[in-house]
Amino acid sequence: MRELLEAVASGELTPAEAEAQLAGYTTTEAGRFDAARQQRRGVPEAVYAEGKTAGEVVDLLLASLKTTGRAIATRASDEQVEAVRAALDDADLDASVRWRDRAGVLLVHGPDYEPPDVDATVRVVTGGTVDRGPAGEARAIAAEMGATVDLVEDVGVAGIARLLDHLDDLREADVLVVAAGREGALPTVVAGLVDTPVIGLPTANGYGHGGDGEAALAGMLQSCTVLSTVNVNAGFVAGAQAGLIARAIGDE
Amino acid sequence: MRELLEAVASGELTPAEAEAQLAGYTTTEAGRFDAARQQRRGVPEAVYAEGKTAGEVVDLLLASLKTTGRAIATRASDEQVEAVRAALDDADLDASVRWRDRAGVLLVHGPDYEPPDVDATVRVVTGGTVDRGPAGEARAIAAEMGATVDLVEDVGVAGIARLLDHLDDLREADVLVVAAGREGALPTVVAGLVDTPVIGLPTANGYGHGGDGEAALAGMLQSCTVLSTVNVNAGFVAGAQAGLIARAIGDE
Amino acid sequence: MRELLEAVASGELTPAEAEAQLAGYTTTEAGRFDAARQQRRGVPEAVYAEGKTAGEVVDLLLASLKTTGRAIATRASDEQVEAVRAALDDADLDASVRWRDRAGVLLVHGPDYEPPDVDATVRVVTGGTVDRGPAGEARAIAAEMGATVDLVEDVGVAGIARLLDHLDDLREADVLVVAAGREGALPTVVAGLVDTPVIGLPTANGYGHGGDGEAALAGMLQSCTVLSTVNVNAGFVAGAQAGLIARAIGDE
Amino acid sequence: MRELLEAVASGELTPAEAEAQLAGYTTTEAGRFDAARQQRRGVPEAVYAEGKTAGEVVDLLLASLKTTGRAIATRASDEQVEAVRAALDDADLDASVRWRDRAGVLLVHGPDYEPPDVDATVRVVTGGTVDRGPAGEARAIAAEMGATVDLVEDVGVAGIARLLDHLDDLREADVLVVAAGREGALPTVVAGLVDTPVIGLPTANGYGHGGDGEAALAGMLQSCTVLSTVNVNAGFVAGAQAGLIARAIGDE
Amino acid sequence: MRELLEAVASGELTPAEAEAQLAGYTTTEAGRFDAARQQRRGVPEAVYAEGKTAGEVVDLLLASLKTTGRAIATRASDEQVEAVRAALDDADLDASVRWRDRAGVLLVHGPDYEPPDVDATVRVVTGGTVDRGPAGEARAIAAEMGATVDLVEDVGVAGIARLLDHLDDLREADVLVVAAGREGALPTVVAGLVDTPVIGLPTANGYGHGGDGEAALAGMLQSCTVLSTVNVNAGFVAGAQAGLIARAIGDE
Amino acid sequence: MRELLEAVASGELTPAEAEAQLAGYTTTEAGRFDAARQQRRGVPEAVYAEGKTAGEVVDLLLASLKTTGRAIATRASDEQVEAVRAALDDADLDASVRWRDRAGVLLVHGPDYEPPDVDATVRVVTGGTVDRGPAGEARAIAAEMGATVDLVEDVGVAGIARLLDHLDDLREADVLVVAAGREGALPTVVAGLVDTPVIGLPTANGYGHGGDGEAALAGMLQSCTVLSTVNVNAGFVAGAQAGLIARAIGDE
Amino acid sequence: MRELLEAVASGELTPAEAEAQLAGYTTTEAGRFDAARQQRRGVPEAVYAEGKTAGEVVDLLLASLKTTGRAIATRASDEQVEAVRAALDDADLDASVRWRDRAGVLLVHGPDYEPPDVDATVRVVTGGTVDRGPAGEARAIAAEMGATVDLVEDVGVAGIARLLDHLDDLREADVLVVAAGREGALPTVVAGLVDTPVIGLPTANGYGHGGDGEAALAGMLQSCTVLSTVNVNAGFVAGAQAGLIARAIGDE
Amino acid sequence: MRELLEAVASGELTPAEAEAQLAGYTTTEAGRFDAARQQRRGVPEAVYAEGKTAGEVVDLLLASLKTTGRAIATRASDEQVEAVRAALDDADLDASVRWRDRAGVLLVHGPDYEPPDVDATVRVVTGGTVDRGPAGEARAIAAEMGATVDLVEDVGVAGIARLLDHLDDLREADVLVVAAGREGALPTVVAGLVDTPVIGLPTANGYGHGGDGEAALAGMLQSCTVLSTVNVNAGFVAGAQAGLIARAIGDE
Repeated sequence: MRELLEAVASGELTPAEAEAQLAGYTTTEAGRFDAARQQRRGVPEAVYAEGKTAGEVVDLLLASLKTTGRAIATRASDEQVEAVRAALDDADLDASVRWRDRAGVLLVHGPDYEPPDVDATVRVVTGGTVDRGPAGEARAIAAEMGATVDLVEDVGVAGIARLLDHLDDLREADVLVVAAGREGALPTVVAGLVDTPVIGLPTANGYGHGGDGEAALAGMLQSCTVLSTVNVNAGFVAGAQAGLIARAIGDE
Repeated sequence: MRELLEAVASGELTPAEAEAQLAGYTTTEAGRFDAARQQRRGVPEAVYAEGKTAGEVVDLLLASLKTTGRAIATRASDEQVEAVRAALDDADLDASVRWRDRAGVLLVHGPDYEPPDVDATVRVVTGGTVDRGPAGEARAIAAEMGATVDLVEDVGVAGIARLLDHLDDLREADVLVVAAGREGALPTVVAGLVDTPVIGLPTANGYGHGGDGEAALAGMLQSCTVLSTVNVNAGFVAGAQAGLIARAIGDE
Repeated sequence: MRELLEAVASGELTPAEAEAQLAGYTTTEAGRFDAARQQRRGVPEAVYAEGKTAGEVVDLLLASLKTTGRAIATRASDEQVEAVRAALDDADLDASVRWRDRAGVLLVHGPDYEPPDVDATVRVVTGGTVDRGPAGEARAIAAEMGATVDLVEDVGVAGIARLLDHLDDLREADVLVVAAGREGALPTVVAGLVDTPVIGLPTANGYGHGGDGEAALAGMLQSCTVLSTVNVNAGFVAGAQAGLIARAIGDE
Repeated sequence: MRELLEAVASGELTPAEAEAQLAGYTTTEAGRFDAARQQRRGVPEAVYAEGKTAGEVVDLLLASLKTTGRAIATRASDEQVEAVRAALDDADLDASVRWRDRAGVLLVHGPDYEPPDVDATVRVVTGGTVDRGPAGEARAIAAEMGATVDLVEDVGVAGIARLLDHLDDLREADVLVVAAGREGALPTVVAGLVDTPVIGLPTANGYGHGGDGEAALAGMLQSCTVLSTVNVNAGFVAGAQAGLIARAIGDE
Repeated sequence: MRELLEAVASGELTPAEAEAQLAGYTTTEAGRFDAARQQRRGVPEAVYAEGKTAGEVVDLLLASLKTTGRAIATRASDEQVEAVRAALDDADLDASVRWRDRAGVLLVHGPDYEPPDVDATVRVVTGGTVDRGPAGEARAIAAEMGATVDLVEDVGVAGIARLLDHLDDLREADVLVVAAGREGALPTVVAGLVDTPVIGLPTANGYGHGGDGEAALAGMLQSCTVLSTVNVNAGFVAGAQAGLIARAIGDE
Repeated sequence: MRELLEAVASGELTPAEAEAQLAGYTTTEAGRFDAARQQRRGVPEAVYAEGKTAGEVVDLLLASLKTTGRAIATRASDEQVEAVRAALDDADLDASVRWRDRAGVLLVHGPDYEPPDVDATVRVVTGGTVDRGPAGEARAIAAEMGATVDLVEDVGVAGIARLLDHLDDLREADVLVVAAGREGALPTVVAGLVDTPVIGLPTANGYGHGGDGEAALAGMLQSCTVLSTVNVNAGFVAGAQAGLIARAIGDE
Repeated sequence: MRELLEAVASGELTPAEAEAQLAGYTTTEAGRFDAARQQRRGVPEAVYAEGKTAGEVVDLLLASLKTTGRAIATRASDEQVEAVRAALDDADLDASVRWRDRAGVLLVHGPDYEPPDVDATVRVVTGGTVDRGPAGEARAIAAEMGATVDLVEDVGVAGIARLLDHLDDLREADVLVVAAGREGALPTVVAGLVDTPVIGLPTANGYGHGGDGEAALAGMLQSCTVLSTVNVNAGFVAGAQAGLIARAIGDE
Repeated sequence: MRELLEAVASGELTPAEAEAQLAGYTTTEAGRFDAARQQRRGVPEAVYAEGKTAGEVVDLLLASLKTTGRAIATRASDEQVEAVRAALDDADLDASVRWRDRAGVLLVHGPDYEPPDVDATVRVVTGGTVDRGPAGEARAIAAEMGATVDLVEDVGVAGIARLLDHLDDLREADVLVVAAGREGALPTVVAGLVDTPVIGLPTANGYGHGGDGEAALAGMLQSCTVLSTVNVNAGFVAGAQAGLIARAIGDE
């Protein structure tokens, strides 16, 4: 840090340039910071809509749209989405709106928004239809980060043949997000069959002892293969981590 | 109960016959009871040796040998086994002694003991070599109950091909005991491939969150296939339950 | 696997025959697979209705009915059942519909469906009236698998006499499913009195510490007798496991 | 409190008399207090020996012996007991020493100690031999409080007949302490058969899920009969509570 | 048992007399059994109303009223109580109805019912007004069993003076039930001040870590004084246990 | 205590003076006691409104207002607040009412109430907007105790720069309350940057494993810096503890 | 930050001065940093000796002694202490060494070390002798930070009188650290009697359910009075927090 | 699968070619399989040495060395390493042996082994010296997979400046493994500062509530930034996952 400060003192650097170099930990207002973070991390800011009023969601999304040209909400409800659509109409903003209701993800792109494009594929795999919510969240986020994303559904370990029939699909992806509830064994079986990074996404399916995704999470952490995991139903985190890996691969 | 008592009053039943009919809850001494229980349940009495002195184990096994012609100890140590061998020599009892050290099971048969024979097979499957202790306990008990028992080892789900290569072996058994630690997914995968009863046996392998067999147990309870389970490392219970099922099948 | 492939190469096996031999892990569409699984495992596919819309339940049941001649839903609601009845009327399908509301199980048989028949009896035992839901689920599934199923109710361990009065009933069954909440001691006491396989079914009765069935589950896992168990309220699994054992016994 | 103070002011009460009336919360030294507590509560002070050095145990027991004429240690080891015996010899104290090694309880009575005598009986019941430690602790403490105490052993619920054979024994007692590990069902079954207060004493037997006495404790708290419980292995507390009840009964 | 059967055979006992002697474990119908249990145990049967329909509660209470002259419901709702009142009116039964709404306890006495009378007092103590529900349940049950019952309220340990002002009240009771939520320290402090049996009743007050009564329960189990405890909010069990102790004291 | 009683006896102290000296544990009615506690502890009594009827909240607040000139409710709802406003209007009490709806805190000051004033500042810091509820509760209570209180919001550790920009703000406060949910790392980072006491306030944000504030609480307890913590969402406790420290600092 | 950088550019600030202003997050070597932290925070750096070799402890303490003139180790063993004494002798350092063996704290002051002096008192209170370890750790650290520290021992809530006898002692302190194991009620009772900040220090005494300090911790978090707490056995944290508060009070 | 079989039938494919295409789930012997897995997955097979005898470790490592030219053991002890060295000498194998004692990792390369080389860097970051064991395990495995690996140590969040000084180091890596115990906040802070994938590695440091790594694990799962995690102390998994990502990046 001393070198940098001395460079400012000597005029080698203007204060603005120095601030830019310290940008990792510099900011003035909340709004500007979000943009900085998105740029720096490559992970888009998303509004966690659950528990917020429709009005709060509208305000946050409009701010995001103005600052970064894009806005994302996760765990949104129909009512919140309606409010956002109405607000965009009122504001006469020519934005494209996509609403993935099963995943609860709302995607808004401004007219000039240029989505990133990454030369890498992410495959999102689910054990059953009940895993579609978190899996869809992961899929939407990874796609927003520029990766090519496909879904391989309903290949639970109770019928291992279904999984084996998709072996080529699984092997040709660059990164895999594997969502499973109940006993959460699917990421383990998948990771034993491929040579790419696998991210386990435990879902809150199941009931009784180990319900709420705890058995699935524990099983993924105990996996006798190599995989990393995220929290229960954390589709955003799984998708963003896959997106970061895809970006690292595809940008080289 | 009134009918039975009236039958006694009328002389239709002798008191002894009535007692026999009530035999489910009649007994006089501890010694005699154990024999009755074994005969009734088909499950051999076994001494849980862990935490007992060598002397206590010797006393209990000799009592069992005299009463039922057979004696079994689980979770026994080398020292305890030596003490039993010495005691049998001292007593000049012409008993056969088998010591399965990995499983910690000691089996003693008196000279006139006629082991039961059941026309049914039990397959004990393990995910890895570390599951051999509880699996061996299950195997020994099911065999003592008269079933034909084989071991299919090292077919963990991380390399699903190993398991599929044993598909015929698995399908031709009448009952399966499937032991697995870590994430405990093996019984789920196996139960999806066969049409016979599967008993999950979680083992205390693994570490960190969900270690001590808790992840494996929770995974088996949450299994999206059909299986029943026993407690962590409860090889005796798994083997005896398999033995009971085998007996029900083989005795018809 | 090599042998099989060589047999195909030499013409000993047609590709179709080879596929049939590999049927354990072969399938093409979701629909066909379910039928295959049911045939292979003997366990009927059932739709877990909780959390699904009435429309989704209708779709899944109609698909099942067309493919296998039978459809089952568990944890169904009155509203879902009404929707299914209406859909069957609309489709002019001459199917018999049975609705076990306490157990939440809906059973639909097509006009040509021939239920399996197994020469073995399953006794479902409950500690109290509150256990009737999961117990009824177990009963319905075991019956659908062809077993003769009876219910022995309200024999909780707090009044041991009630249980002893049913001793003969318990002993003449081939398999027992014993449902209990609170402290879950009933399966232990029952298993000490019979020589047949006992499956413990913990129910989510009780409150405070160990509520939600956790005390009952832990008690069954710790049982000092021989029994295997299933997850809390997992009536389907208990009934299907009993059905598999009954089939193994009755088919010989 | 005002009335009492005014009585002191008016001379109706001497300060000493007032202090005596406030005795519930009056004391001066640690030594004297213990004596007061024992007198007030009827529960003898006992030294919890585990984790203390032999020297510390000796000091505390000698202090207790001098102050109250009696000394008790729980969870004591052979080494600690030897040290106490040696110290008593050295001090030439003519005390009777009883050492219940299985229960880990050491009882020392001074030459002039007059044990209390209460006209009530406590029955301590165990499920298996492994429960003898905590059960013995309970037995020793209840006996020290003056109750007549008997032991009914090895009547676990896996063989309900053993328990029923002791029905008269159980019913004629005034208070029951019922110790059980594993699934802890024994107190529930016993309480359903008698009309006297039952105290459940969970023991740390068992293994795997719910081991360390947690399943037994949860089962007793969930019991569908009426019983109160104490912590795992808390033999002292169970025995003392039984002693308090016996005293309340026997003193009337 | 053999002696008894021989006595029947010899005509010394009629079958009815023999059945009476075996009454601990004899019954024929559900209705009659309840009466037997109440008589034997002294604990009144109560209907746990939570989760039952108003109709079910009415049926069960009327059955109880006819069989035993009394009916009790716990955790009842206003709606259920109204239904019971209406049913009693319809049936023209001249029964007294008391409804303790805070405690959720409904008490119905038939015209000829003679309540038991026990010469012993139970004091129910609460830490705060939020504990009144479970405390009221305990109070009602102990009173129904014939004890004299009083309430000492709002003496939580955060203001120890409030408790000390009630010291005489506490000391003159024969048995104490002490209800407390949050950290559950009140039973410990009370038990240190009296020489009578104390039953801890943890209540589900509190929030965050250790909420739902778990901290209070753990604290009572860990208490450094002598007390036994019941499950969280188990007012019925605490009151009935106090009633059993009071009966044992007052009947002598 | 003896000295005090002797002083009463000798007339040195009047009974009233003696009672005053014993005031720590003296009281007569609930109402008066609250005033005493507030005076002694400096912590204002507050009504925990959650789960109480509007009527109960009104009664308790009016009593508090009359006794101490002030009334506080936490976790209040709009409906409860309306009822309080109406009751104050009805009673024609000239009280100021402030309603912090986000924090759920209602503050009522009587016309003659003189708020305390303490020469010390408390800074309440939050990781995100979702922490505002508990943080606002803490802020309101500390302010009521007389401290100068400011809020530093939205400085979560995911963007460490935001926090560093507030470094001077944080360092100039006398006490810090730091609220954080999710992983709860903010208090640790803050405490590493300041030399004043930090109180961690975990909030119930987050989901899945460690949700409901448990991860945040555990993280604060494990913190590798120096801080003390309170229970999840315990804004009142955190604010009052900060207020006590501020008072100790500011009163000197 | 921009202002600061512009000040550097304009020559108002030298780079060194700017670095000093940014000192909160500036450092060069590990060694120097520790000194900076100690100065900034007022909390002395201490070596957590458990699990380290004697050699590692010696190295770290010598480094600390040279850099700050003082060295502290917590959870040290006799062997480690001997090694430190030997190393100090070898190095011919004229340092004073104090070893608090019960608390496991080693304090080394260099010849020129001037301990801080703060005009405030900390009282460390324990429930029983078993709490002395963590309490002693707290005491040593608070004293090292300059506070006057006293110990009030053995005032557990089971005998509330012992505590009340120390009421004046407790009230005259500026800060209280209250250590308790088992049910952990002591801090609650103490905090209800004083008007100063109380820090709860749960200790790992107790056994069975809630053992290892978990019941005590939960109880303190649930306390119905105002107190903040630290982790189980975290004597260092409790003492340092008390020291920070004392410093804030005594330095004004 | 049908297509493949038909191709075999038509002679388009030889059986061997077909088997190769099915290679994901084909194998014959354990030995050959391991080699296949390593080749397919890129993750080297490693022997988990803890709990194995020195002889077992030797056998497994020699087998690995012969099959793949390399052998790795994790959680090895000095004694096991000595046995391996001796066995290599005896076998006159010209292998290079590296022993990372702090990490417990033993690396053996045969004379002809050509290590993989991947053009990507992994940075392993630790919060404190106590994290070096798992961090070293991660480092060794990632390096074995061909990545360039560096260590950034002792940058715990309690002194955030240390971390910020390493910002450039962190940002220039392709993948980060961040190990932390106690509250586990370091990965969260790091992930907020970089735009590369971060893998959290919780370590079993800490004590009391949330000890054994549970607080750190929960904190990482709850992280408000984007990161994936592995089980407590699972250095091998973290390193291998980083290696897989590095390979995906570096191989393009």
